[in-house]
Amino acid sequence: MTDAVQDHYPDAFAQCYGCGRLNEDGLRVRTVRDGGSWVCHFTPREEHRAIRGIVYGGTVASLIDCHATGTAAGAATLHCGDEITPDTVRRFVTAHLGVDFLAPTPIGVELELRATTSEVRENKVVVDVELSAEGKVTARGHVVCVEAPASLFD
Amino acid sequence: MTDAVQDHYPDAFAQCYGCGRLNEDGLRVRTVRDGGSWVCHFTPREEHRAIRGIVYGGTVASLIDCHATGTAAGAATLHCGDEITPDTVRRFVTAHLGVDFLAPTPIGVELELRATTSEVRENKVVVDVELSAEGKVTARGHVVCVEAPASLFD
Repeated sequence: MTDAVQDHYPDAFAQCYGCGRLNEDGLRVRTVRDGGSWVCHFTPREEHRAIRGIVYGGTVASLIDCHATGTAAGAATLHCGDEITPDTVRRFVTAHLGVDFLAPTPIGVELELRATTSEVRENKVVVDVELSAEGKVTARGHVVCVEAPASLFD
Repeated sequence: MTDAVQDHYPDAFAQCYGCGRLNEDGLRVRTVRDGGSWVCHFTPREEHRAIRGIVYGGTVASLIDCHATGTAAGAATLHCGDEITPDTVRRFVTAHLGVDFLAPTPIGVELELRATTSEVRENKVVVDVELSAEGKVTARGHVVCVEAPASLFD
């Protein structure tokens, strides 16, 4: 399986419910570079429903959130001239999350999230995410990510 | 315990991961009227962490989302001159969810979400939500809710 940005987070940052590889109850979002964009594939579990057959909006927001911070981490690391490794990978948190829900997202199929960056700086990355199911875009996210403050590492 | 808006949703709409009283794996958000605003109390589980000691942003977004749609349902029902009962309660979905993360939200304490409406119509309600922990506001939400389309009931 191709490396995801999250595979390189140190253990202390691999706890997240959304994308932590060490959070056994979580979603384990994986952000993989794909040419000029970043892609995530995810199949929601049955409990992640809003009503029968439709994915819960909070799950959609969660996927967009973690895929965006993963994209920010990857893009900022590359922007600084580094390869993405456990020693170099940057860590970002969300300052603003915006999600437009365009259509119901069907449950029971694999979703694709594709992220692009419109601004990349060492300490701030702006990410746009399209979430699609069976080829149809059902949600769009606009996420402002900022470098994780040092106080989080205390 | 005081009635929540979600207590009155019909069973088919009580399945939501965020607020469905019939979703055993979900968050079971409850929206209670409190004078001119609507309040929700919630204590995240340990797995809902971002890193140690801090609540995951996707969980924050999920709480804001479901408390906002619950507020919209309650406010629109009252706006139409009805009491909130299983026969009268409206149902709303999220068109736009915006969340500003102001500070880390500590895990292990009860959170309070307080929602107010800035626009209430029969088919659209705009909701602002403040999430606070130990008296400090850590996130703000701005949510545009629209009446659940009839197609969801098929």
